[in-house]
Amino acid sequence: MQNENSTAVLLLSCPDKKGLVSEITHFIYEKGGNIIDLDEHVAPEEKFFSIRVAWDMNNFSVPASELNKTFGQLADKFNGKFEIRFLEEKSRVAVFVSRYDHCLYEILWRNSTGEYPFEIPLIVSNHEELKRLAEQYQIPFYYFPINKENKIEQEKKELELLSDYKIDTVVLARYMQILSPQFVEQYPNMIINIHHSFLPAFAGSEPYKQAYQRGVKIIGASSHYVTEKLDEGPIIEQDIIRISHKDSLKDLIHKGRDLERLVLARALIYHVEHRILVLGRKTIIFD
Amino acid sequence: MQNENSTAVLLLSCPDKKGLVSEITHFIYEKGGNIIDLDEHVAPEEKFFSIRVAWDMNNFSVPASELNKTFGQLADKFNGKFEIRFLEEKSRVAVFVSRYDHCLYEILWRNSTGEYPFEIPLIVSNHEELKRLAEQYQIPFYYFPINKENKIEQEKKELELLSDYKIDTVVLARYMQILSPQFVEQYPNMIINIHHSFLPAFAGSEPYKQAYQRGVKIIGASSHYVTEKLDEGPIIEQDIIRISHKDSLKDLIHKGRDLERLVLARALIYHVEHRILVLGRKTIIFD
Amino acid sequence: MQNENSTAVLLLSCPDKKGLVSEITHFIYEKGGNIIDLDEHVAPEEKFFSIRVAWDMNNFSVPASELNKTFGQLADKFNGKFEIRFLEEKSRVAVFVSRYDHCLYEILWRNSTGEYPFEIPLIVSNHEELKRLAEQYQIPFYYFPINKENKIEQEKKELELLSDYKIDTVVLARYMQILSPQFVEQYPNMIINIHHSFLPAFAGSEPYKQAYQRGVKIIGASSHYVTEKLDEGPIIEQDIIRISHKDSLKDLIHKGRDLERLVLARALIYHVEHRILVLGRKTIIFD
Amino acid sequence: MQNENSTAVLLLSCPDKKGLVSEITHFIYEKGGNIIDLDEHVAPEEKFFSIRVAWDMNNFSVPASELNKTFGQLADKFNGKFEIRFLEEKSRVAVFVSRYDHCLYEILWRNSTGEYPFEIPLIVSNHEELKRLAEQYQIPFYYFPINKENKIEQEKKELELLSDYKIDTVVLARYMQILSPQFVEQYPNMIINIHHSFLPAFAGSEPYKQAYQRGVKIIGASSHYVTEKLDEGPIIEQDIIRISHKDSLKDLIHKGRDLERLVLARALIYHVEHRILVLGRKTIIFD
Repeated sequence: MQNENSTAVLLLSCPDKKGLVSEITHFIYEKGGNIIDLDEHVAPEEKFFSIRVAWDMNNFSVPASELNKTFGQLADKFNGKFEIRFLEEKSRVAVFVSRYDHCLYEILWRNSTGEYPFEIPLIVSNHEELKRLAEQYQIPFYYFPINKENKIEQEKKELELLSDYKIDTVVLARYMQILSPQFVEQYPNMIINIHHSFLPAFAGSEPYKQAYQRGVKIIGASSHYVTEKLDEGPIIEQDIIRISHKDSLKDLIHKGRDLERLVLARALIYHVEHRILVLGRKTIIFD
Repeated sequence: MQNENSTAVLLLSCPDKKGLVSEITHFIYEKGGNIIDLDEHVAPEEKFFSIRVAWDMNNFSVPASELNKTFGQLADKFNGKFEIRFLEEKSRVAVFVSRYDHCLYEILWRNSTGEYPFEIPLIVSNHEELKRLAEQYQIPFYYFPINKENKIEQEKKELELLSDYKIDTVVLARYMQILSPQFVEQYPNMIINIHHSFLPAFAGSEPYKQAYQRGVKIIGASSHYVTEKLDEGPIIEQDIIRISHKDSLKDLIHKGRDLERLVLARALIYHVEHRILVLGRKTIIFD
Repeated sequence: MQNENSTAVLLLSCPDKKGLVSEITHFIYEKGGNIIDLDEHVAPEEKFFSIRVAWDMNNFSVPASELNKTFGQLADKFNGKFEIRFLEEKSRVAVFVSRYDHCLYEILWRNSTGEYPFEIPLIVSNHEELKRLAEQYQIPFYYFPINKENKIEQEKKELELLSDYKIDTVVLARYMQILSPQFVEQYPNMIINIHHSFLPAFAGSEPYKQAYQRGVKIIGASSHYVTEKLDEGPIIEQDIIRISHKDSLKDLIHKGRDLERLVLARALIYHVEHRILVLGRKTIIFD
Repeated sequence: MQNENSTAVLLLSCPDKKGLVSEITHFIYEKGGNIIDLDEHVAPEEKFFSIRVAWDMNNFSVPASELNKTFGQLADKFNGKFEIRFLEEKSRVAVFVSRYDHCLYEILWRNSTGEYPFEIPLIVSNHEELKRLAEQYQIPFYYFPINKENKIEQEKKELELLSDYKIDTVVLARYMQILSPQFVEQYPNMIINIHHSFLPAFAGSEPYKQAYQRGVKIIGASSHYVTEKLDEGPIIEQDIIRISHKDSLKDLIHKGRDLERLVLARALIYHVEHRILVLGRKTIIFD
């Protein structure tokens, strides 16, 4: 990464104390950076400070390659957790799918626009149905059928593949398999799932059926980071749509589909634009 | 109830079979009624028929007082469950409150407009705080402090009072007491509660705190009929509002308050306009 | 069209009078039809009656081919305007596009699911950019460059093509040309446009720029039937999304894109499921 | 205003340049302030910088009374427009009404909660209907009937009254009179109106009727600062609700009423919490 024409993004969180914004922005200013966007928040109950700052790296006196180290000295003083990213370094996203195509379609279209900072080096599936779609978009498609016996072994191969492709983000685009804890721990806060309900309502299987039987008046979809506990990871984005008694279970599935793909796409974009800070079970979205 | 200037509403549900709409509308037509609004639905999976018809009673040949009996003969043929109401007979609503005033305010204001078919003969509370507000609107206020020991006894007195006042609908406007099964069974599908979450998420106590801790991106409110099982009765209406990490728990409570009062008010209006059919755990809302 | 396994849809509107529902449903019942869905409404101010009825044609004693004539005798009595369609006869939709692909993508995906009653025999464009996408989906693509001089001539060729392909519905999927009145009058209430604003706000060109400059807090998209007057045809569907001062004009365009494709797709589906009745400048959507 | 237990809010806008956040936050830090909330934005096209910072004044070395002057020296360097407010100094709001009570009710209820930084020293009306409501809440009510002849004279009296009561904010809560330019210029960006449409659609009179006739599928309400040009001032907040063909004009008015009061209340709260920066025709809302 060159400094020229590059935009740095700092995400930082730490216990609140006086002068944090001042010190951080002074650091950027004295090195010659021009802040484009800054969003800061102190949670009033938890007294916890969090910030996202994006700045123009042209004429910045610290080279991009040394920024982590240089800024780290300041962050140490705050007892802060931070990461620095460059928007021009596109995230490398592996999309995992099963048989449903709507979320994959959505992500392929977003990618095709060239407007978001990610690329899709490969698609992984436990079924063969969507191979044709992958080919249509000339993206390598890897088929790993999964059953109880081969699961750990297959996941190992998948992990190797992700490593070979230098993948940093995994998107489960209605992937109908539960990843093992061993897999998940390799990608902490880097695996994004879409669950087809308004979490925490209707976690687990067949959420539309659960919603239909309960008679809710609104259904939802939730995108979250995957953790060891099913459907309990930090929520990134949610959205809803109103339904009525006229909607059959099939109608719920159809309406929900439109939510799923938009919610997942929005979550992915927040992620690749480095707008998400994970604090415990919760996310902060700097939008 | 006179036929003149009166509007009848039929709510009916039964197993589907051919000719139901035809027979029902023919009945109305041949007696001289003019249908103002008709909404009918057959659930495709359950093969269950449900209908709401409203018609003008002017020149209707069956007197309002005999309509139940006369129509009952037809309904028997369908094995149908039905009720017939007249919009001009206002529902008599008892409002139960504790300390929060926002839902009570909302209902008092709706009532003050004179535009909805209900009246509020009395307000019941387990606290004295809202007595002043009741007085402002010149509505009798009854104070029944409740504790473990006196609960059943106090509820008995409340039930007597409701009976004296010929109450047909009870609205729990953030009433912070759980009604006993004995109370609930006296008013089947006639007690409307507001729960301050997007049910079934965050049932039980302190839903905003639960929502805050879970880190959801959207909060909701749900109005439902009260059944024996807490927060599990048929849902009438729900709505939501988007929140962000900037919202403290207190902000959630404030934002949620605006949902609660609107959702409860809309549920109440559906109820008093006889737009709700309860089928098992679900409602059909003819809106 | 065979009666067997077929579903008839009647859309009818006429001045209100007593007995309309009864007569219509009696007609269906006595011929042996089973009503699946009925929605009826009388506008209280205009005293205008409108209805959509869908029924199962199995065992219906009037053949599908004669239904129009047979029912017409009844409709004449009401002074009613009606149409009868069969859900199994898929609408034949021509999609007109220019350079933007998002609406086309959406419609292609919907079509690919096989779940909606339409097919896309051809795509028409005044640019060549989206030819590749049409080929990917193996749909004939016709390129008609348009300028002031050749417009009428090119439209004639387009109309011939639509006629050859037996097209009944034209979708303008961000087609950046204004159709001539001569074209429009060939397809009354059969040309569906998507306008990228919340109509009637920001009609005409560059609605996002207009919205950005006006500083609205919410943007929208509107799908409507095309009439002679630009952006003034009957509105079929609208939706909105909240924006903030943080959104640049480009962000508005991106957010709006997600609205446009969903709103257009929903409008198209209402149309091909025969859920739309046009009354003057307004539509009734039986959803 | 004492420094102790007080919270300062700075709103500032100026042409963008390097180091702005750094200088502002350094100023606060070196004087001993603890930043609670900071939101900053640079409009990418206009290259315009805007910021809202709130900080705890305990132990701040500059007295509240001198803060404007002291900070002004810094702001001069940026060529910036700014204001500094203290959340503990409640805004003094005059509510202007005519005959509709819903917006007044809403504001009275908000005020009664004691949770928002404003008070209502008086209510002004061109009708007498709402006097009773004002009395119920023990707020002085002033009746100024307005006609063409007496308008300027009556407005003068109103302005004197506002001055006597040290009013800083005027809320037009469905006040059915157009204020004269002379009145408006006395309260630049301090008069908040609610218009019952989704502006800029349906500006002017009878917006619900306009919406009904146009056949929109969604209606809205917009709160904005009043300027000389009717319904064209900077928009503060908007919201919408979905309608259908089943909604009569009266239903639109009822549904819209719920929007109006919430949208106006939210706008008022943004205003009294000093979350609004006006830039030309647009507002920045730091929420």
